[in-house]
Amino acid sequence: MKNLKIVIASDSIGETGEVVARAALSQFDVVVEERNLKRYAHLTDVKDIDNFIQSIKLDNVVVIFTFIKPELSKYIVEKLTQLNIPFVDVMTPVMDMLKEKLEDGPLYEPGRVHKLDADYFKKIEAIEFAVRYDDGRDPSGLKYADIVLIGVSRTSKTPLSQFLAYRGYKVVNIALVPEVELPEQLFEIDPNKCIGLEIDPSSLFEIRKRRLEQLGLLENAKYGQNERIEAELEYFHQTVKKIGCCTINVTNKAIEETASEIIRIMNL
Amino acid sequence: MKNLKIVIASDSIGETGEVVARAALSQFDVVVEERNLKRYAHLTDVKDIDNFIQSIKLDNVVVIFTFIKPELSKYIVEKLTQLNIPFVDVMTPVMDMLKEKLEDGPLYEPGRVHKLDADYFKKIEAIEFAVRYDDGRDPSGLKYADIVLIGVSRTSKTPLSQFLAYRGYKVVNIALVPEVELPEQLFEIDPNKCIGLEIDPSSLFEIRKRRLEQLGLLENAKYGQNERIEAELEYFHQTVKKIGCCTINVTNKAIEETASEIIRIMNL
Repeated sequence: MKNLKIVIASDSIGETGEVVARAALSQFDVVVEERNLKRYAHLTDVKDIDNFIQSIKLDNVVVIFTFIKPELSKYIVEKLTQLNIPFVDVMTPVMDMLKEKLEDGPLYEPGRVHKLDADYFKKIEAIEFAVRYDDGRDPSGLKYADIVLIGVSRTSKTPLSQFLAYRGYKVVNIALVPEVELPEQLFEIDPNKCIGLEIDPSSLFEIRKRRLEQLGLLENAKYGQNERIEAELEYFHQTVKKIGCCTINVTNKAIEETASEIIRIMNL
Repeated sequence: MKNLKIVIASDSIGETGEVVARAALSQFDVVVEERNLKRYAHLTDVKDIDNFIQSIKLDNVVVIFTFIKPELSKYIVEKLTQLNIPFVDVMTPVMDMLKEKLEDGPLYEPGRVHKLDADYFKKIEAIEFAVRYDDGRDPSGLKYADIVLIGVSRTSKTPLSQFLAYRGYKVVNIALVPEVELPEQLFEIDPNKCIGLEIDPSSLFEIRKRRLEQLGLLENAKYGQNERIEAELEYFHQTVKKIGCCTINVTNKAIEETASEIIRIMNL
């Protein structure tokens, strides 16, 4: 990787290509940096592609591209083949497969995946919603929420809420702290909307220890103590029982994985 | 699309496959719903794949898959070919290309893209940071921010901050309201970290009108009035000049596009 340059080219912003590149790169023991993974966006005609080809280093480079317009895919394939640069065309196989099956389209308009339609505005609204009602700031949001996450401190409530918001769900999260009374609205919602974020005590201990170190606080602060953690988790289980909601164990799980598990549960 | 079922299969959570599917589907004039776009995650052995094949409807279905293990890709290709089900293998071409170029790997461990490494924790921290310092809640965040977004109300500051956070940038956003004094720290930061979100008055007028309607408020409230908008935008331009930062016009632009433009500016 020291010298290999992975280039993403697109007639839109190149996000899809980067997602694919990063998924593949994660399987190699390399550090991905700005200088070896680079996006070239909005290449909308053959002249843009010519300039693009000129500007990439021709030694030890590979190209991953996502062009919506078939004539651009065809043109870049020609150019890269001439120059003997390895490449992968991400979109064409999928577009061709769908074209066989769907009547209306393709429309061949780059950037349509980012179009400002109802889904887009739903997503944006959900992101703003999750920020507004983060950490139980205002319990009045509970009745509008699609999903309510509860858990003790450091169980990824905030990032999880954002990931789910990105998928269009309105999320309220509420921290469980034994000393802080819970809003009564929490016990009035449909328990199927609520999910308790469970975590193993030893893992929580480690996370909080690291957190305290980051904050420059003493290791023996109440927050990180074992008995404190046990008490909080006991309170968590009591609350979950009282609400009658299900739980997900988030220990050592990436946010993406937990979010996808929550969506599966919600759709059952 | 009425009857076509698009199925994403993966030995991890299937996020990459869904991103590719949605990008392609956006080019067709169809409404994507839960029942016609479905993910099958964590198919980690041939038995899982057998069960998967059993459970998908065999008529009018297409499969987009992302297996990290080559033996699983090979197996599913065999099965789908036998059944005459169209498919696209997203990962294998990219993995093969990188294998030629990189020494260490591939590791063939599904889910590694979601591994809990330094990048992952940086992203999570950035998401929490953006929530904590949203809407100028606490100006003390300004000195830790990688990016500071300023703009009048309804210029997508909050969702933009989240999109950038997802890419690992720590973002503070601050609303410009003529009547509210700005924190002095805003004028002490490096102006290169700051970006003003510009918007065309007519577009802002429409967005605010819609917003007022949503909120069930009268159309002639101060917030949506033309003169009010002119005054706010004038204040915006004065502030941008005072800070000495650059601006981006967000009118009719999707958050993804603006975010990618900001990242480009920041890396220059």
